[in-house]
Amino acid sequence: MNTYILQNENALFYECNFSCDNAIFVRFNKKDAFFITDSRYTTEAKEFVKNAEVVNGEKNLTQKLIELIKKFNPKNITFDPKEWSVEKFECLKKELRVNFISSPNFSQIKREIKRKDEIDILKKAANEGRLAFDRFCEFVKKDGIGLSEEELFFHAELIFKDRGKLRLSFSPIVAINENSAKPHATPTKKSLKNGDLLLVDAGITYSRYCSDRTRVCEVNSNMSFSKEQYFSCKKRQKIYDTVLLANKEAIKIVKPGIKASEVDKVAREVIKEAGYGEFFIHSTGHGVGLDIHELPIVSQNSEAILKEGMIFTIEPGIYLPNEFGVRVEDMVLVTKDSVEVL
Amino acid sequence: MNTYILQNENALFYECNFSCDNAIFVRFNKKDAFFITDSRYTTEAKEFVKNAEVVNGEKNLTQKLIELIKKFNPKNITFDPKEWSVEKFECLKKELRVNFISSPNFSQIKREIKRKDEIDILKKAANEGRLAFDRFCEFVKKDGIGLSEEELFFHAELIFKDRGKLRLSFSPIVAINENSAKPHATPTKKSLKNGDLLLVDAGITYSRYCSDRTRVCEVNSNMSFSKEQYFSCKKRQKIYDTVLLANKEAIKIVKPGIKASEVDKVAREVIKEAGYGEFFIHSTGHGVGLDIHELPIVSQNSEAILKEGMIFTIEPGIYLPNEFGVRVEDMVLVTKDSVEVL
Repeated sequence: MNTYILQNENALFYECNFSCDNAIFVRFNKKDAFFITDSRYTTEAKEFVKNAEVVNGEKNLTQKLIELIKKFNPKNITFDPKEWSVEKFECLKKELRVNFISSPNFSQIKREIKRKDEIDILKKAANEGRLAFDRFCEFVKKDGIGLSEEELFFHAELIFKDRGKLRLSFSPIVAINENSAKPHATPTKKSLKNGDLLLVDAGITYSRYCSDRTRVCEVNSNMSFSKEQYFSCKKRQKIYDTVLLANKEAIKIVKPGIKASEVDKVAREVIKEAGYGEFFIHSTGHGVGLDIHELPIVSQNSEAILKEGMIFTIEPGIYLPNEFGVRVEDMVLVTKDSVEVL
Repeated sequence: MNTYILQNENALFYECNFSCDNAIFVRFNKKDAFFITDSRYTTEAKEFVKNAEVVNGEKNLTQKLIELIKKFNPKNITFDPKEWSVEKFECLKKELRVNFISSPNFSQIKREIKRKDEIDILKKAANEGRLAFDRFCEFVKKDGIGLSEEELFFHAELIFKDRGKLRLSFSPIVAINENSAKPHATPTKKSLKNGDLLLVDAGITYSRYCSDRTRVCEVNSNMSFSKEQYFSCKKRQKIYDTVLLANKEAIKIVKPGIKASEVDKVAREVIKEAGYGEFFIHSTGHGVGLDIHELPIVSQNSEAILKEGMIFTIEPGIYLPNEFGVRVEDMVLVTKDSVEVL
């Protein structure tokens, strides 16, 4: 095993069951690994870190890392060039005579195929996420009419957290009508009326693993966040049905051995054929795990080949600027010979 | 003016009144500046960005930046080596024949002395933060006994947000007894009893500017988050009074021309004289603005000289592992010839 260094919180958690916002992890061999942090975190780190020794790096973790590297004197060190700032890396290079091997995303690559226990946790995360959508739907039906996007956003955060039992995997997107045409809309003072198109994109974390889901519906007393949706407006219905078909057709072809780019192509073709190709302005999906966005990427240029145990989103969308947008997003698991929607 | 490039969200907001989590800003001269983002954000960016042209960088913002740099062909480009990953920077260096000038924290340095309008906003932020402490105090007195740290943390988040009117500047710290000995404690299942020592470190943002404050008290029906505190336990009282004195003495010497390291020294000496020097395990303070941690740093090694318009925290602490910890934190403004506690 090469010596490797990591800084990203989720990469650290994957290695040793703990992370904090100021830490460096280094593994020299099977036996010798170190979790370097500062005195604000050492007490807690000593309680939770597994498979590594906790070291107090005081005011300068990089300096402590350099000391350890000098002591163990490895020939090569693998690092992720996305994780290290120019400043810290220059500091390492200046003080060390080591061959640095640049390996983009090597922690995410390790984590691309989920273990059985991770799949179980991600299934629970997806399920808790679904239950939160149901709770939010009930809230909107009961108290949502007249609330602004900002207020709906606040309540979405609250409801997805389920009184603190859950944490969010990202800040929810709650967008009404033309604001839904912005794939990452921030909430405005616009308020909700019956008949509005409402887009909700939200997820929670369960044991640190993320869920991610998007639903769009027409607001009324019977609304739900199921995939089948009815819109009074014909154009909305046409767009919705196109996106839903793209979602379903893409899911249908998922299985081990298929290229991720093929999955993207299937979704994109459905939307192109309906005449909205130019309005599907992002990739079809992304891996989900400890990070909300991880590997594989499901896009036109993705080189990933699907393998059993991968978990990613399928989320085609059509965005008509100043009109409205629709996205239908599910998490899927690649099974031994097919696919399971989580 | 040198050409400069920026990626950090708050640095971007400072330059052009908008930011999102995937954007690059480049300014070539007084007239020509560009906000490069992807199609998820362009609609919104066009609505809000001031003093710069919004450019769609599609899937590769760095490539779009390279195109623009080639077009304007500057001799030098200033960048912050803390902001750029090794990967992105290697990409720029490979494709461009430009002299890159490494300037750590240059955006934060620009922002170190606050303008009049920023001071007004930060005063409002501090005041909203104080009101939120009062609301949280009332909650704890009324409903807090028996709740776990996790539940208290959840309610603190909720109460500091004031039904969505405010956002948090960081995730609150709510720690009971021995958990308060960890300066950045994460909440546990331990529940609150009368007579417990309770530490709360929390802040909100107002128009994107942060507040930051820490209070410690003994939990009972008369508790408050004022600076004067009474503890039934003599040791707690002694530690508290020492930290409070350190806080007050440090604030007292703040004025333009004083070294930040002098302020740290005053706080540290008070704690050292009381015999607890080794338990004051962090710096005395940090600047606060768009970032929760910015310049100046108030520490032993800080080279900053205080100037009118700087705003920073004074937050000495004593942490007795497995017993308890105390920190008393205020935000202060350096005025023309003295100091104002916000």
